[in-house]
Amino acid sequence: MTYTLILLRHGQSDWNERNLFTGWVDVPLTDLGRAEGVRAGELIAASGLLPDVQFTSVLKRAIHTAQLALAAADRDWIPVQRSWRLNERHYGALQGRNKAETLAQYGEEQFMTWRRSFDTPPPPLDDDSEFSQAHDPRYAGLGDDLPRTECLKDVIERMLPYWRSDITPALGAGRTVLVTAHGNSLRGLVKHLDGISDEDIVDLNIPTGMPLVYELGEDFMPVAPSRYLDPEAAGAGAAAVASQGKSA
Amino acid sequence: MTYTLILLRHGQSDWNERNLFTGWVDVPLTDLGRAEGVRAGELIAASGLLPDVQFTSVLKRAIHTAQLALAAADRDWIPVQRSWRLNERHYGALQGRNKAETLAQYGEEQFMTWRRSFDTPPPPLDDDSEFSQAHDPRYAGLGDDLPRTECLKDVIERMLPYWRSDITPALGAGRTVLVTAHGNSLRGLVKHLDGISDEDIVDLNIPTGMPLVYELGEDFMPVAPSRYLDPEAAGAGAAAVASQGKSA
Repeated sequence: MTYTLILLRHGQSDWNERNLFTGWVDVPLTDLGRAEGVRAGELIAASGLLPDVQFTSVLKRAIHTAQLALAAADRDWIPVQRSWRLNERHYGALQGRNKAETLAQYGEEQFMTWRRSFDTPPPPLDDDSEFSQAHDPRYAGLGDDLPRTECLKDVIERMLPYWRSDITPALGAGRTVLVTAHGNSLRGLVKHLDGISDEDIVDLNIPTGMPLVYELGEDFMPVAPSRYLDPEAAGAGAAAVASQGKSA
Repeated sequence: MTYTLILLRHGQSDWNERNLFTGWVDVPLTDLGRAEGVRAGELIAASGLLPDVQFTSVLKRAIHTAQLALAAADRDWIPVQRSWRLNERHYGALQGRNKAETLAQYGEEQFMTWRRSFDTPPPPLDDDSEFSQAHDPRYAGLGDDLPRTECLKDVIERMLPYWRSDITPALGAGRTVLVTAHGNSLRGLVKHLDGISDEDIVDLNIPTGMPLVYELGEDFMPVAPSRYLDPEAAGAGAAAVASQGKSA
């Protein structure tokens, strides 16, 4: 018995396009990002995979990507569960700031430390900032769990408990699970699944809008290398589905 | 302590426009239907109501209406729960048939009995029909509960248990609840809430895309007449929200 997990990073957002640090700021997808969501759903449909249940962050760029993908795959109706634990890394005081200006102001070494260090977070974001989530009702129940800044290590420490409490039970019930989330929350999950070191994980980039499929064993760890549903793979999957009808 | 319930009937679907009996057939919204969903969300936002949790059927015309409304109200992130118990009435053998042709074939008396009788369902739909849901995976767990036809009485009998098991507990937890569903599942709920007779309920029509708001008491029954969020009411609500800031 193996379990199927599909990871999907949201498509391009407004602030990706404008080169701003986004983090927990709830910005929408661009037209390109919406097209990426639709394309991801078409790839899932062509692969023959049928998600039974889905998990998303509470940020609309992930929520909308999942909605568009599932509409394209004609699986709008599957149950959905959302959690802040799947959110993007909180970028602290960098949220809402231009990346090029931040680089010019602080220099490359500091800039790259904030962007890519495993365990050094940027300075915390002030609760009075217009880019703060301290007064956002969706996080009202978090209390002291609400981050003001995070490094990748922090993201993993708040994401993995949700993987264990909510996602692996759905897998264990035999459901094909779709997780639609963000560059850093998915990076944290891939680090766990593939046993990547603290040093190497910061260089791993997960492409947007490209479903990444894992086959997991009873311990919810991979039994084979993960694979992206690229057009070639999807085409082969579609041919396999088509040939099932012929051989029956 | 009172509880706030918002009912929303999905916008126009492809088959509304084509004058076909739809029932459980999973057809998409038209452009007009999508605009109705957005408008409903704008009305909810302007009223100052803030849905905390949402319930939908498992049919995409309701799911998409809710997604569009919540996006327009900037509440994409609220938890969602879907159930077949909120689906439209199953129209039996009429599903997929043209209404005008059905009227011409069977005559007005039979036609109106099927459309409007409280307790006379149309003939059952054959499981082999292209319009059947007998082999649809979203209903795989239903077993003998899967309807092949329904009258309004049948709809109420499968909808009210869900109202009691899932929706009223969310209300009782103090959540503002949005239910996005269908003409007949909402008619059944309104019948229950407003104590409408079996004879009178068949003449009650709930408009599409127009949020209907109930204030409920501790027994989850209305403490005041329900109201539609029409543009005038929404304008007054927006003015009240705006004036809160001024008097503070």
